[in-house]
Amino acid sequence: MTIVAGLHAVAEYLRSTPERVLRLSVQRDRRDEALSALIRIARDHDIQVTQVGRDALNRISDGTVHQGIVAHCQEFQPKTEAEFETLFESLTNPFLFAIEGVQDPRNLGACLRSAAGAGVDAVLLPRNRSAPLSSAAFKSASGALSSLFIVGVANLARRIAWLQSQGVWVVGTDDQASKRYTEYDYGSSTLVVVGSEDEGLRALTKDRCDALVAIPMAGSVPSLNVSVASGIVLYECVRQRALRTSSE
Amino acid sequence: MTIVAGLHAVAEYLRSTPERVLRLSVQRDRRDEALSALIRIARDHDIQVTQVGRDALNRISDGTVHQGIVAHCQEFQPKTEAEFETLFESLTNPFLFAIEGVQDPRNLGACLRSAAGAGVDAVLLPRNRSAPLSSAAFKSASGALSSLFIVGVANLARRIAWLQSQGVWVVGTDDQASKRYTEYDYGSSTLVVVGSEDEGLRALTKDRCDALVAIPMAGSVPSLNVSVASGIVLYECVRQRALRTSSE
Repeated sequence: MTIVAGLHAVAEYLRSTPERVLRLSVQRDRRDEALSALIRIARDHDIQVTQVGRDALNRISDGTVHQGIVAHCQEFQPKTEAEFETLFESLTNPFLFAIEGVQDPRNLGACLRSAAGAGVDAVLLPRNRSAPLSSAAFKSASGALSSLFIVGVANLARRIAWLQSQGVWVVGTDDQASKRYTEYDYGSSTLVVVGSEDEGLRALTKDRCDALVAIPMAGSVPSLNVSVASGIVLYECVRQRALRTSSE
Repeated sequence: MTIVAGLHAVAEYLRSTPERVLRLSVQRDRRDEALSALIRIARDHDIQVTQVGRDALNRISDGTVHQGIVAHCQEFQPKTEAEFETLFESLTNPFLFAIEGVQDPRNLGACLRSAAGAGVDAVLLPRNRSAPLSSAAFKSASGALSSLFIVGVANLARRIAWLQSQGVWVVGTDDQASKRYTEYDYGSSTLVVVGSEDEGLRALTKDRCDALVAIPMAGSVPSLNVSVASGIVLYECVRQRALRTSSE
């Protein structure tokens, strides 16, 4: 079971995938407008609402700020690679994103939020080198998880090779790359790959990429947060693709 | 005094502004490579290093993850508006950033990290409508604070008016704006203004802006994290300005 805590995260979950919400726990001595609105929505969907004490809610949410409300949801199940291949067949000019080795669930959630905002067709997550899609990830994703097609990938390098065989260009982000991310043309079918907070992409993954691009850094700042870097590169794709569409 | 906790944040502080580090507290029973390296650097700068127990360090860092090390630093003093006016005189084609009403110190720190990466000339923070530049803000800024010119502003609307009188164009981000952020020309002297996580810019501030721009959002995601939104808009400025420089 996945625990989703906090007004915003629960609201987004109830809105986008109410069928995945098994029940709500709400704090007995708390009654504000926002909380009452969520309880009404839950009841409209025949979702059970249980009143509990503050301490119990703290335990359920395991330290995550809950603002008086927690949703007990079905475990988030990433799509299978077979399901991804079926989706892929249906895409025109695919816009894909892979996150390799981001270990902090909050960072992972923030990356997913950036990806959802940019409107990627699917997100590839290596199954054994990724933070879990935990309550903390859900919360920092602000509901983005429910609107994304997320695929659990057994072997990212092999999946990249498959995508390349299908005509997808693969662009990795790398602080040391000589090409700026703005100098690449993302107009064709594209997979953008970002690496972990500390170490970036693995050598094996880098070798597989058709291009490596860097985000220029001013002054003495060593790097951007990975969710910010993801947002910057993905929105450059969006910008270029919108230009292309409008000039066609 | 400002408490800076964690290996990365302390390292960045020691590297960029060792004169502001008054002393270090390190965990007595912890000895790893990274920690020892920081102790050596501190000693090279004649900074006192005190060994303390884990519980004491937890208390000092007030719940922030400290990884066995905390730096006691001089309070971060934003620059005054008079100092800003002096700086402003010296700038060619100013690139400025204002953050209005971001209440979460971690979000504020992340915004500052984005701003430092993009290389803004100064960041304006309204003194009474901003999270404190606390330990949590320092940590999520990953050392960006020490490389930024941060100004405490008494009245943002008035400062915006002053900047406009000096030829600066003021662009606010607003989810409801009809213009995309990529449709604006940031080549001239520019101030980018972002608002709080939940409410965006205040009406008074919006009214003052020369233009309002939105970041397009795909699907059902309501918004981006404010540090990601900041990064996307500021790096669009960087992209446009680099193009302009290279075509001159």
